[in-house]
Amino acid sequence: MDTHDLVATSERRQQHVERVLTSFFSDSHYRARALGAPYAALWQTLERNASGGKLFRPRMVMAAYEALGGTDLDAAAHVGAAFELLHTALIVHDDVIDRDFVRRGNPNVSGSYRDIATTAGIPLPIAEHRGMSVAVIAGDLALFNSYRMLDRSGAEGVVRTRLHDIFDEAMFVSAAGELYDVDFSIRAEPPTVDEIVDMERLKTAGYSFEGPLQAGAVLAGASGEAVHALGRYGRSIGIAYQIVDDLLGVFGDEGDTGKTTMGDLREGKRTVLLAHAVTQPGWAAVETLFGSPELTPEGADRIRSVLEEGGSRRFAEALARDFANRAWEALVTDALPEAVRQEFQPVVASVLGRVR
Amino acid sequence: MDTHDLVATSERRQQHVERVLTSFFSDSHYRARALGAPYAALWQTLERNASGGKLFRPRMVMAAYEALGGTDLDAAAHVGAAFELLHTALIVHDDVIDRDFVRRGNPNVSGSYRDIATTAGIPLPIAEHRGMSVAVIAGDLALFNSYRMLDRSGAEGVVRTRLHDIFDEAMFVSAAGELYDVDFSIRAEPPTVDEIVDMERLKTAGYSFEGPLQAGAVLAGASGEAVHALGRYGRSIGIAYQIVDDLLGVFGDEGDTGKTTMGDLREGKRTVLLAHAVTQPGWAAVETLFGSPELTPEGADRIRSVLEEGGSRRFAEALARDFANRAWEALVTDALPEAVRQEFQPVVASVLGRVR
Repeated sequence: MDTHDLVATSERRQQHVERVLTSFFSDSHYRARALGAPYAALWQTLERNASGGKLFRPRMVMAAYEALGGTDLDAAAHVGAAFELLHTALIVHDDVIDRDFVRRGNPNVSGSYRDIATTAGIPLPIAEHRGMSVAVIAGDLALFNSYRMLDRSGAEGVVRTRLHDIFDEAMFVSAAGELYDVDFSIRAEPPTVDEIVDMERLKTAGYSFEGPLQAGAVLAGASGEAVHALGRYGRSIGIAYQIVDDLLGVFGDEGDTGKTTMGDLREGKRTVLLAHAVTQPGWAAVETLFGSPELTPEGADRIRSVLEEGGSRRFAEALARDFANRAWEALVTDALPEAVRQEFQPVVASVLGRVR
Repeated sequence: MDTHDLVATSERRQQHVERVLTSFFSDSHYRARALGAPYAALWQTLERNASGGKLFRPRMVMAAYEALGGTDLDAAAHVGAAFELLHTALIVHDDVIDRDFVRRGNPNVSGSYRDIATTAGIPLPIAEHRGMSVAVIAGDLALFNSYRMLDRSGAEGVVRTRLHDIFDEAMFVSAAGELYDVDFSIRAEPPTVDEIVDMERLKTAGYSFEGPLQAGAVLAGASGEAVHALGRYGRSIGIAYQIVDDLLGVFGDEGDTGKTTMGDLREGKRTVLLAHAVTQPGWAAVETLFGSPELTPEGADRIRSVLEEGGSRRFAEALARDFANRAWEALVTDALPEAVRQEFQPVVASVLGRVR
């Protein structure tokens, strides 16, 4: 396929999943109205928080499914939508844990409900707690319904059981990753590079890459070897993606990434970059700047210089390339047809293309 | 059945569900160990929080199932265990919302993890936030796995679909009830009696009575009319039970109920008693005592006197009896066999027996 076809295919998949999600939220909203307008409004807020994303995980499901010869696109779109609802639930609750009230520049569930409360004259601490309380409920609804969405694919018998196993594992490992992330945040000693890689693999890569790819493969009726190989690919590319994401969060071009390169430094985000940096002698000079809410653009530049000069940036880039290479190699097996390599080798290239 | 048989039957059901839950937690703990000791410890904490209860909801499932002629007790025990996991998830998250760190006199999930952190020298506000963060994760795990447990009943086809619908509805209405409870807590004007009854029906009665009874009936292959009648019974008895529970929270004998009769008054719990009381002229005299963390036993006695003299206690007792009567009447239908009345009419009597 040429670039134009790739974009068209990706958009077709995205639109299919959007239709499935719109239909689900429309039904839920209708049901909620019978229980009162405030409950219906909560569902609208949840829908806003589940929409407008790139539907990355559903597109992974559908890409694997189609590359392995699957033709029931509606079934694949429902499995994809299940992963998207799981993702929505996890980020809504992650924001509660991180006490974040904003996501992608807009108020998230907590932020929306906090703002309604402050507008009504409620003091800020009570309004914030109210926002977080409603976000706990909203995340529960997305989480509970994600499992149900999986069943709407119409999969039966052994395929259904394997889909459930994969989906279950995706959530199971993500909870472990979230726990370790919470643990790191209160621990005195900084996490090691291995601990960060493990945490990111569990918290994000599992349910964002490995799970969706395996689910797409199982739904397409692929062999155990093919499912396994795609899972290995997903795990490695997921870690590579996460490391690159962390690099862009500090060194990226704000015009490209659409997010500030100050945020991660200001909140003291635990990344591979940081885990490497703290082992370097130059780190002591910027240690107090890192994670400071008052960090200035000049302070951020000083941290970036230390990350460059101490070799942390180079180290993280090499690690990302290493995982990307492993991902590429996982695809080189007779268990996978050529169409799979055509679909997923460009993903490796695009991840690598995001670093120097 | 005589009393001895009733107790023996109830214990047999309880033990069966306990075996199912023990097996589930044992599997999960084994899986979690592969992801690290802290994750395995989280599963142990979750198991402690899911155990030791009276398994009220599973016993409702099994009672309905057996009274309607069901014989696959293991299937019913799995459906019961699903409702117990749902219950665990909802109370773990309810405690996060209420910022409670104790349940039934023991540290809950938030409390256990807060205490570990404070013991390690972490300042209290950070330790509390850590406790609540882990409780968000733990509740997610229980919630996610509740759906899965339902499938372990082995139900297939139309029975499985109807079980999913009932389970889905139970969680859907509970989330609405939780939202309204949160809304009441920040609203200036106190909720009306009708609003309290609606909230309690949604938040608790649905998933504790109506849902489990309907699920047991569906699993037993009962007719649509029988399922509907048991649902009506469950809704009414659930509301009656909740009103009686609120009465006992203020007027109960601590030796019988095992919980302090100061707690609800001190936290300013929104109940039918309160909703009635605020409309009475005598309430102004004790308004500032209600919901005060410094409430003394003498202050609590003054509130109780006002609730008695203003007729609030009498009102709540009459309302509980009214709902209990509706529950009784719902059982009087040809759609339900005599065995169902033998099983559930004593429940009505026992609920009424708890009030004067």
